Amino acid sequence: MKKSFEIGLIRVVTLEDNQLLNLHGKIIEDNFPGLKVESKCLPDQITGIHSPETKEIAIPKILKLTQEFKNKDMIIVSCADDPGVELIRKEFPNIPVVGAGESTAALAQKYGTKIALLGITDYAPDPYIEVMQDKIIDIGKPEGINCTLDLMTEEGRKSVIKKAKEQKAMGAQVIALACTGMSTIEIAKVLEEEVQLPVIDPVLSEGLFAYFEYIRNK
Amino acid sequence: MKKSFEIGLIRVVTLEDNQLLNLHGKIIEDNFPGLKVESKCLPDQITGIHSPETKEIAIPKILKLTQEFKNKDMIIVSCADDPGVELIRKEFPNIPVVGAGESTAALAQKYGTKIALLGITDYAPDPYIEVMQDKIIDIGKPEGINCTLDLMTEEGRKSVIKKAKEQKAMGAQVIALACTGMSTIEIAKVLEEEVQLPVIDPVLSEGLFAYFEYIRNK
Repeated sequence: MKKSFEIGLIRVVTLEDNQLLNLHGKIIEDNFPGLKVESKCLPDQITGIHSPETKEIAIPKILKLTQEFKNKDMIIVSCADDPGVELIRKEFPNIPVVGAGESTAALAQKYGTKIALLGITDYAPDPYIEVMQDKIIDIGKPEGINCTLDLMTEEGRKSVIKKAKEQKAMGAQVIALACTGMSTIEIAKVLEEEVQLPVIDPVLSEGLFAYFEYIRNK
Repeated sequence: MKKSFEIGLIRVVTLEDNQLLNLHGKIIEDNFPGLKVESKCLPDQITGIHSPETKEIAIPKILKLTQEFKNKDMIIVSCADDPGVELIRKEFPNIPVVGAGESTAALAQKYGTKIALLGITDYAPDPYIEVMQDKIIDIGKPEGINCTLDLMTEEGRKSVIKKAKEQKAMGAQVIALACTGMSTIEIAKVLEEEVQLPVIDPVLSEGLFAYFEYIRNK
């Protein structure tokens, strides 16, 4: 039995600050004993992924980082749009991979049938559509938020809370965060208190599926 | 922050042996730190649930046990058919509940699109159909296995392994165990070695979703 399970985690935004780079990994290590996370980020992508074009540009870089992580027990693509996840499954069949999007979507479904997405785009990330389909009642892009960096200001946080309240008023039973930048600002619990709905955090979600892979093989 | 998360786990087969009664709980406690499980079982149901009729009979008893567990942080119905899970959600809206079936089905989907069920009935438990739909390529009932007790013999184990090999030959990419009795006999890892496919264990699966509820609220 292996003592720990080594994860290579891919951040899809260029981060020079080590603490920020490792933040998703730290959330995962804090919540899932036995998982050990090393993070790497995409080069030359300072605003991350926030459009079909920026997703497209990211995919070859994600495959390159996967190659660097090829001796890990598992890969996490820490982005709600699951960029490259299907390709990694094809090109690296021996290494399990999970994306934040498919994980969040699978979990959100457990908490209700009227699901509001809350992210940084005015379209739903592909995996959310695939998994949740007609259960999605709103695709919420908070005012003034155009990329993950915009979430990291006080104004950004307020705008997210405002949008969540609107989604509650629309009849949402659960809010599925649709950008891992929402995990970076650790807003899920704040929102749960503000709107009294379950709010599904993408980094906790991807960590959960990685943990399953770990205990399955223990 | 609560130190531990108290779970009431419902076994759908009458068990007088305390070790057997607590076995699913022990698997969960061993794999998910912070979860604390108390198990109760249905009275007068010595062969468990293995048909629509035995499911029907079980549901009022499950609601009665839920009432006894009403001060717990969460309920697990440890049966692949999720008997009573929807009713508990309606009648006890303040206590989260998870079933083995919906959990196993959600996880199995992550491991392939051709999914074989391996259980004790010749029909698929409802939650498996609901979640997996046309991804189910076989509903495997091993020869000589008619209820959970039949799994607990050497002959029963051999019959399960034989069926799993047939499912691999059919092109299954993943085997979703469709009876928590398969967890009781701890056969998932044996099967993985025998057939070299991922095999999804129902008790680990329900535990995973309970653990998510725990860390979400920590």
